[in-house]
Amino acid sequence: MQRLAPLTIHEVPSGTEVFDWTVPREWNIRDAYIKNDRGERVVDFQRSNLHVVSYSVPVRTRLSLERLRPHLFTLPDRPDWIPYRTSYYAENWGFCLSQRQLDALGPGEYDVCIDSSLEPGSLTYGEVYLPGESTDEVLVSAHLCHPSLANDNLSGLVIGAHLAQYLEQVARRYSYRFLFVPGTIGAITWLARNETVVPSIRHGLVLASLGDAGRLTYKKSRRGDAAVDRAAMHVLRQLGDHEIFEFSPYGYDERQFCSPGFNLPVGRLSRTPMDRSREYHTSADNLQFIDPLQLARSLTSCLAILYVLENNRTYVNQNPKCEPQLGKRGLYHALGGLTNVPSTEMGLLWTLNLSDGQHGVLDIADRSGLPFETIDRVVTVLRDHGLLKETL
Amino acid sequence: MQRLAPLTIHEVPSGTEVFDWTVPREWNIRDAYIKNDRGERVVDFQRSNLHVVSYSVPVRTRLSLERLRPHLFTLPDRPDWIPYRTSYYAENWGFCLSQRQLDALGPGEYDVCIDSSLEPGSLTYGEVYLPGESTDEVLVSAHLCHPSLANDNLSGLVIGAHLAQYLEQVARRYSYRFLFVPGTIGAITWLARNETVVPSIRHGLVLASLGDAGRLTYKKSRRGDAAVDRAAMHVLRQLGDHEIFEFSPYGYDERQFCSPGFNLPVGRLSRTPMDRSREYHTSADNLQFIDPLQLARSLTSCLAILYVLENNRTYVNQNPKCEPQLGKRGLYHALGGLTNVPSTEMGLLWTLNLSDGQHGVLDIADRSGLPFETIDRVVTVLRDHGLLKETL
Amino acid sequence: MQRLAPLTIHEVPSGTEVFDWTVPREWNIRDAYIKNDRGERVVDFQRSNLHVVSYSVPVRTRLSLERLRPHLFTLPDRPDWIPYRTSYYAENWGFCLSQRQLDALGPGEYDVCIDSSLEPGSLTYGEVYLPGESTDEVLVSAHLCHPSLANDNLSGLVIGAHLAQYLEQVARRYSYRFLFVPGTIGAITWLARNETVVPSIRHGLVLASLGDAGRLTYKKSRRGDAAVDRAAMHVLRQLGDHEIFEFSPYGYDERQFCSPGFNLPVGRLSRTPMDRSREYHTSADNLQFIDPLQLARSLTSCLAILYVLENNRTYVNQNPKCEPQLGKRGLYHALGGLTNVPSTEMGLLWTLNLSDGQHGVLDIADRSGLPFETIDRVVTVLRDHGLLKETL
Repeated sequence: MQRLAPLTIHEVPSGTEVFDWTVPREWNIRDAYIKNDRGERVVDFQRSNLHVVSYSVPVRTRLSLERLRPHLFTLPDRPDWIPYRTSYYAENWGFCLSQRQLDALGPGEYDVCIDSSLEPGSLTYGEVYLPGESTDEVLVSAHLCHPSLANDNLSGLVIGAHLAQYLEQVARRYSYRFLFVPGTIGAITWLARNETVVPSIRHGLVLASLGDAGRLTYKKSRRGDAAVDRAAMHVLRQLGDHEIFEFSPYGYDERQFCSPGFNLPVGRLSRTPMDRSREYHTSADNLQFIDPLQLARSLTSCLAILYVLENNRTYVNQNPKCEPQLGKRGLYHALGGLTNVPSTEMGLLWTLNLSDGQHGVLDIADRSGLPFETIDRVVTVLRDHGLLKETL
Repeated sequence: MQRLAPLTIHEVPSGTEVFDWTVPREWNIRDAYIKNDRGERVVDFQRSNLHVVSYSVPVRTRLSLERLRPHLFTLPDRPDWIPYRTSYYAENWGFCLSQRQLDALGPGEYDVCIDSSLEPGSLTYGEVYLPGESTDEVLVSAHLCHPSLANDNLSGLVIGAHLAQYLEQVARRYSYRFLFVPGTIGAITWLARNETVVPSIRHGLVLASLGDAGRLTYKKSRRGDAAVDRAAMHVLRQLGDHEIFEFSPYGYDERQFCSPGFNLPVGRLSRTPMDRSREYHTSADNLQFIDPLQLARSLTSCLAILYVLENNRTYVNQNPKCEPQLGKRGLYHALGGLTNVPSTEMGLLWTLNLSDGQHGVLDIADRSGLPFETIDRVVTVLRDHGLLKETL
Repeated sequence: MQRLAPLTIHEVPSGTEVFDWTVPREWNIRDAYIKNDRGERVVDFQRSNLHVVSYSVPVRTRLSLERLRPHLFTLPDRPDWIPYRTSYYAENWGFCLSQRQLDALGPGEYDVCIDSSLEPGSLTYGEVYLPGESTDEVLVSAHLCHPSLANDNLSGLVIGAHLAQYLEQVARRYSYRFLFVPGTIGAITWLARNETVVPSIRHGLVLASLGDAGRLTYKKSRRGDAAVDRAAMHVLRQLGDHEIFEFSPYGYDERQFCSPGFNLPVGRLSRTPMDRSREYHTSADNLQFIDPLQLARSLTSCLAILYVLENNRTYVNQNPKCEPQLGKRGLYHALGGLTNVPSTEMGLLWTLNLSDGQHGVLDIADRSGLPFETIDRVVTVLRDHGLLKETL
């Protein structure tokens, strides 16, 4: 991550109060296993960290299979996959294993070891802030609390870091803030420590599950008609197959950003949503599950959405009474009488017609059915000819 | 009726001016018949009161079939049914009979007798008033002017009386007023005598035709977006097969309650509407036409609508910045990582997210797609944990 | 045109500045041809004025077919049709001919002559103003700049002139202004010279392409919810098969009337729109292309729209509390108990119910689903009985 973008790493001590929550003790794990009578590790943390329920308390004991059973989690209908489970807020321990591993366990006694520690430490998150022309901010957030999961963890981090790397190199109208945080507690911690920043957030995106082969999906902010909602819908419509979801209070960290006390204009860009993905929260969410081309397209879609937000300005037609004579400025086809009009000329007419100070570039694109880029190019030409002036 | 609910019976004298109308003379009838040459009663009021056009003036004469014919009403396409007809506001007389009865009449002379009286008397209606915590009222109205008709008359009265009986026994947020009135003139008379009560009416339902086998239908108030409209639509959607009608100025007494000078939030709950029912206003609208189970379900649907109105309060999340930690209060599943969330937990999240003082319980239920009862239960839990406070 | 309606003819000198435009030099043409080696006119302006690109500069030269070719326009997929082309704002010249004519041209040298003149003169347009009770105006505009084209030129002029002739003879609530102008520059010129009139324009229609066999189409004004939009949609819905288009800044002179500096409530009535008509801007748009019955129906549709605008008044029910007793006024069926209500009686009930000073006749017609004429007739009856009073 640091090679891509200049991350600031924040450590927030265990016990810190963050709104209704408290930063928990820090969990670390060195080893864990279940050994059979012959001393063989039949479940081994060294082979996959998913084998241990995250946040499991330390355990070192010997149990019959029957006594062990309530601590074992499998996916019976996916017998080769290991589930991913956590127990953040209840003291507990457990192992996740494939159904085949469970079926192979004989009736004897097992040595069980979880060499973990739950001690005062800190919550860790990364942040990148890129100042722009304005102190108004765009917030981009991804979660990093699901180790080993490729789509539901790594894909959002990777895209966030590449976005930061790209934006660092270009002129920016807005300032940009990237958060790489543990889900829920991390977002809550950031919000609690940055309440003075919140009023500057104009637009935001939560990035999650952006690498699978499914089509792009966008979940609207709680407001439902925020500029980021309209920008994302425009971009996804232009790109083709996609799906738009209304806001719901279940999901990733949009839950916190869109809580009623903040109600931030933050939506979520994903591919297949969690409740439609069989691989979600299993060992099958690995690098083989990632479609590199779709991951790359997710990145360009993010850039397209940010491009819309950066360039969605509002203009006033300086010649509002009747059309200006575009022909004398070389902006219109000279030969009259044709039936079809190229989209650039339709873009000129739409932009002049709607630029009354009430309609932004995105409004014009949506109403005309033309791509944002077409209207944006047209705006540049008309502005250069003195026919448009930005409304500030 | 009196056994079910403590009715106050009002008598309003003939000649009383009620807005643009005048309470008419009182019509009473003792006997009526058409006798043939052999002295046989071929049409006999003693067998069915429907045989006489309601409000017929007294008649005692002898007529040929030809002269009698214009006073006879049948339903040619339902040869066994007797139609129901009235002549309230034009002095007239007539008999209703089955087409088979008419066909059987020979060409001779007939003795015709209607032993009725049209004399100063009074208009009679019943009223039940149940005071609640608030003087704000819910109005429930049913018509009683169609003697012998089971669905289009009795069903509304029965359900109204049972509602009154039930509500009398429970704590009430609103005050309730039940009207059992002759259609049109009765509602007009009540409104004219109770103009000072009208401003207290917050919600209202006209009950009619609630016992047939058809699905439930709700006709919106003139406002179209009144709380009672939204409550009824929510309840009917939860119950399954139903149909919603936009307001129209034709129908039952919603015509008067929704006249522009009152524009009360009064909708109508029915099953098959009059213009789709062949039995409507015929002798076939009898007790055999009533489906007891559907009648009972109509009652529970009314109760469900009133339940929504009683409990549709608005709350403010007392921990509006980020989600409160539900786990530490035992309100959330302890084991993380699961894909599906039970509807009660979704209800918790939706209620916390939307309780910003702008969304009532019904808004939350509608937006979440969860039943009102789920949100209502959740509200109680959250209020008990100090996480919600009612907005007054 | 003068036989139908008393046109005022305006001449605006070349060089006059009209907003961003300048009235151009006047183009006149006496003769034009292409002669082959044998002196035969293979393309002859005397046979069709479409053969010359409108506004062609004078030419008299001798060219090889190869050199001539860039000046020749055909429709390869319609080999018998001559296209219609113009070159208003770029100095150029050209001939339009059928593909068959082009194919028949041998390789030799051709005498080319366009005996035209482009000299200071004037732009000519016609105007009819019919004063009404109010100085508020209805604007009706048709273009006259496509000589020889029947549907896309003559049909709008013919209907405009007949409307003016009819309206001249009847009482008018609004004043009416008919414009017969060259497209674009004519409308711009009129607007530039009549800015003080513009604020009086309450409704407007551009008439174009009203004679073909296609169904009626209406293109909404830029506002989208202007009274003329709602009137046209109501009338077209009553008439049956039709299509409604949202506003777009491409088309006829609605482009100018709906430019953002004016934003007039002007829509467009047409039949087949230009981009769906193969005959558009070709020699096939001739009198054979006109369907006389459809042309006549276009006229009656315009009259119906203007009828709605003229009569769309707003009333207040003088007996707003409960229904008035229509029976005692002879306005309601005497015999009660019937299932179906005639539409006139439904019109009475709807009009009384919605006449609260907020709903005009068109609102009532749209909400009731009844024709405007029904509500309008009912309004007259109710007003005559003192039950309605106009809101001014």
